[in-house]
Amino acid sequence: MDFLRVAGAQLNLVVGDIDGNTDRIIEALAWAEDCQADVVLFPELAVTGYPPEDLVLKESFIRDNISAVHRLAARSGETAAVVGFVDRGAGQRDDAGHPRVHNAAALVAGGGLRGVYHKGLLPNYGVFDEDRYFAVGENGGALWEINGVAAGVSICEDIWVPDGPPAEQLAAGAEILLNINGSPYHRGRGSERQEMLAERARSAGVPLVYLNLVGGQDELVFDGQSMVFDASGELLYRAAQFEEELFWVDVPLPESSGVAPQAVRVTTGDLLDGDQEPAPPTHEPYEEIEEIYRAICLGLGDYVRKNGFSGVVIGLSGGIDSALTAAIATDALGAAAVRGVTMPSRYSSTGSVEDSRSLATNLGIDFDEISIEPPFTGFLEALGGAFELTEVDVAEQNLQARARGALLMGLSNKFGGIVLATGNKSEMSVGYATLYGDMVGGYAVLSDVSKTLVYQLARWRNRNGEVIPQNSIDKPPTAELKPDQKDTDSLPPYEVLDPILERYVEDDASVGEIVKEGFDQATVERVVQMVDRNEYKRRQAAPGVRITTKSLGRDRRLPITNKYSG
Amino acid sequence: MDFLRVAGAQLNLVVGDIDGNTDRIIEALAWAEDCQADVVLFPELAVTGYPPEDLVLKESFIRDNISAVHRLAARSGETAAVVGFVDRGAGQRDDAGHPRVHNAAALVAGGGLRGVYHKGLLPNYGVFDEDRYFAVGENGGALWEINGVAAGVSICEDIWVPDGPPAEQLAAGAEILLNINGSPYHRGRGSERQEMLAERARSAGVPLVYLNLVGGQDELVFDGQSMVFDASGELLYRAAQFEEELFWVDVPLPESSGVAPQAVRVTTGDLLDGDQEPAPPTHEPYEEIEEIYRAICLGLGDYVRKNGFSGVVIGLSGGIDSALTAAIATDALGAAAVRGVTMPSRYSSTGSVEDSRSLATNLGIDFDEISIEPPFTGFLEALGGAFELTEVDVAEQNLQARARGALLMGLSNKFGGIVLATGNKSEMSVGYATLYGDMVGGYAVLSDVSKTLVYQLARWRNRNGEVIPQNSIDKPPTAELKPDQKDTDSLPPYEVLDPILERYVEDDASVGEIVKEGFDQATVERVVQMVDRNEYKRRQAAPGVRITTKSLGRDRRLPITNKYSG
Repeated sequence: MDFLRVAGAQLNLVVGDIDGNTDRIIEALAWAEDCQADVVLFPELAVTGYPPEDLVLKESFIRDNISAVHRLAARSGETAAVVGFVDRGAGQRDDAGHPRVHNAAALVAGGGLRGVYHKGLLPNYGVFDEDRYFAVGENGGALWEINGVAAGVSICEDIWVPDGPPAEQLAAGAEILLNINGSPYHRGRGSERQEMLAERARSAGVPLVYLNLVGGQDELVFDGQSMVFDASGELLYRAAQFEEELFWVDVPLPESSGVAPQAVRVTTGDLLDGDQEPAPPTHEPYEEIEEIYRAICLGLGDYVRKNGFSGVVIGLSGGIDSALTAAIATDALGAAAVRGVTMPSRYSSTGSVEDSRSLATNLGIDFDEISIEPPFTGFLEALGGAFELTEVDVAEQNLQARARGALLMGLSNKFGGIVLATGNKSEMSVGYATLYGDMVGGYAVLSDVSKTLVYQLARWRNRNGEVIPQNSIDKPPTAELKPDQKDTDSLPPYEVLDPILERYVEDDASVGEIVKEGFDQATVERVVQMVDRNEYKRRQAAPGVRITTKSLGRDRRLPITNKYSG
Repeated sequence: MDFLRVAGAQLNLVVGDIDGNTDRIIEALAWAEDCQADVVLFPELAVTGYPPEDLVLKESFIRDNISAVHRLAARSGETAAVVGFVDRGAGQRDDAGHPRVHNAAALVAGGGLRGVYHKGLLPNYGVFDEDRYFAVGENGGALWEINGVAAGVSICEDIWVPDGPPAEQLAAGAEILLNINGSPYHRGRGSERQEMLAERARSAGVPLVYLNLVGGQDELVFDGQSMVFDASGELLYRAAQFEEELFWVDVPLPESSGVAPQAVRVTTGDLLDGDQEPAPPTHEPYEEIEEIYRAICLGLGDYVRKNGFSGVVIGLSGGIDSALTAAIATDALGAAAVRGVTMPSRYSSTGSVEDSRSLATNLGIDFDEISIEPPFTGFLEALGGAFELTEVDVAEQNLQARARGALLMGLSNKFGGIVLATGNKSEMSVGYATLYGDMVGGYAVLSDVSKTLVYQLARWRNRNGEVIPQNSIDKPPTAELKPDQKDTDSLPPYEVLDPILERYVEDDASVGEIVKEGFDQATVERVVQMVDRNEYKRRQAAPGVRITTKSLGRDRRLPITNKYSG
């Protein structure tokens, strides 16, 4: 049986690093040639990194990325390469005066650019804004002949819709579908993708190769998990998740119809003779909690590495959120890159300091103890006149949190390292956090992780022995900003709060709908009001890793000034 | 000559306040009936407020806004009303599972809903994301008969493109064009609009009525300035800028062709008999600096009022930025709502405190003096161990700024009032600001105002006598965080910096292009690098009033993790 040797370069590329990305692509291209691959796939917008956002509006950026494609093309040989880049459109400008450009795939081989495909379906929902940047491609039915095989090339969203460009390619006689992606991770995304792709291959009756980007980019994590399906929809190979990988698979081709479809010639060699090699052993998906943990590690690690930070600084409260954050940071960056700081006040239990110290010991990270009493007392002294005759209230509580934030930033400014915010999604949703206090940080590791999920992740991290002190897991959550404070003084218990938040924030359900599902009306109304009122805090929050279908970041865009509630 | 009496309700509506907006609309409808108007226009998405952003993804929000339209319709009488709302589409869901809806205009009269127009051109650039929310309308050529006159109704963007829906309406026989808007202000926008609209009316040969929203919504200011043009493109009337207004104009109709166009009947009455009344005296546009000043006042005022704050708290440094911020706040909200706080340190000149005190006296606002020495000393004490053997550097400087930020937030938490950040666009562009320090605040009044423009606005504010102390205007800008510090120690002079920033930030020009325009290469490279490196700070900045074609807010979306420079 004939087969096409398809290689995949599941690379971790860097947004804006056109030269660096191009070097990585050329390196992988050489590897693919060594493997005698007929074709090698690179991720969506591999040259520019994904998503480049408003960099696409810069004329110099477009020019530089096109030069890079010419450099790639000049370097190409017998293996055809499919490489994502930003192509110039037909020269018109859009309503805003920007040049019309396309999210495109270059087909390069034999020292030249053989063809270009323009993405036909542009996602413009959730985290995606592709209508802002790209014009719709109109060569959806084009085919590319690679060593005599008619291939349909498409980009990400193109394959998600049953009658998208790949359907046109099949109608034109495509014998294999090649789809390149920058598809971000969220919980459960892998199996959704696999099901959809298997169904596409099966109903098409041709093999399908899905190549995905890997790596963290601000809020997004691209999880790799590239996949190869045969013409019956069987999974032949699944690449690693959250890791770079170069792979190739001999993809069996279905019987040719005998009619040679119209196609642009990319390579003119012959298919490999002889028996096809078996696909390498497939990577099994991680169990869900481990997968989430690894997604967060990659998101954090890449944010720190790609932005050139020497390490991280974390305030350790003795609670579970900061403990889990420190464990993730240690796993992502190594213990030497992590500095934990406990900052007790008059309201801190001795347990909090001890638990933080145990955690630091267990992780092997640097540990400081800095009392906030001197600055806190200083604040109270400075405000003595203004606060005279007032009751002690949330103002004094927030000053403690803000003293801590400033101390962490002081360490960061003095010694380098980025401060990590430790708040979870439940707190951030209801605004149970101090702006410029515990919200301080360049990256918010748990900002898309509900408190309930924080517990699950902590228990998973402790599966081989106690790293996060059991006491931090067991004790009732508290901000320790006044005597005997508990989260439940201000919030419903998390087992009630979290399902309400999931329905309201992630699913856009109304109060009425949530109440119908069995929740107490007054509780739901109170939670919804807290969420709505605290939009201003979230607007000033650090970005964090997106792991759900709707994080509190770029995929949730609510007005601050807003009288709607419900 | 026949004329149509067209009324405009240039209202300041509130996003999400469906009930409140509907009440305001009903009130204006009654007024229009009293005026014997044939038709009254309301702003784009008047029922929901504009822009509602992701509220549109909530099914309950759509339902509530449609109920409101039915309430309006039931209340309508002899005057036809054109009211913006969100209409349900043909029932399909989009790729993300959201219901397809339209940015729409309801035509109501005689107690019923007579028709609906769907916006055909959806802006999805700059500050606009309408492709995220709305489906494209397909009834562009529909006409609506109002007392025998065939009117073409369109929404905002529809009229900006020469061959948009109004062109179809003209081809179908429209005798007048009615265009409702939520068109945000930026410097120079008014004359761009007027020129474009006059040209549309002139080339159409029919009158055109342009009705715009007024009011502040988060970063955006809608400036009103509704306009009425006759069939020759002459401006008959311009409504007030930055203020609500109800107006009506008897718009002369061109000679009828005699052929009655196909139109949906909205009202079946007769045009008014007798002579048309002259249009009210037109509002002249403000001189540019005054216009900008008033735009900022409206943006700030509406943010404070619509979010229910009792007042504002402003740190007064003795410099020009905080002085201008305080003057704007006083003009927008009244002196009683403004609290100024001077927070001297060991590095503050006595002049800084005195200038702040004079300013407060001139404005008649509350004034506190709170020394930051106690918390600053407390921070140094707390960090004494960690900072041992290190040189004094930016870490100590930032602790001062952060002590000030925490003190302002303390006053806000204790007494209410929103803290205003006072940084200007030049500083925010290059990151010459302390995160959690002087960046503290719920609203950043000058965040789209370059330092050069700050001076112009301050001089304009002092046109009738000194309010902002001359000393604050004259002295070289300084952060006063170390002895004898000047902004020019770290930055090029503002007369060099600001033009570079305008080209790089607002125009997306490259380093090469800017250097070609006569700037020093090393300076341009340094500035560009500062801008690129400080994206993370801007991501955590408070929103502020947009007054240029590209603010640092929602209309500039650059990745934080980004290796591209140039």
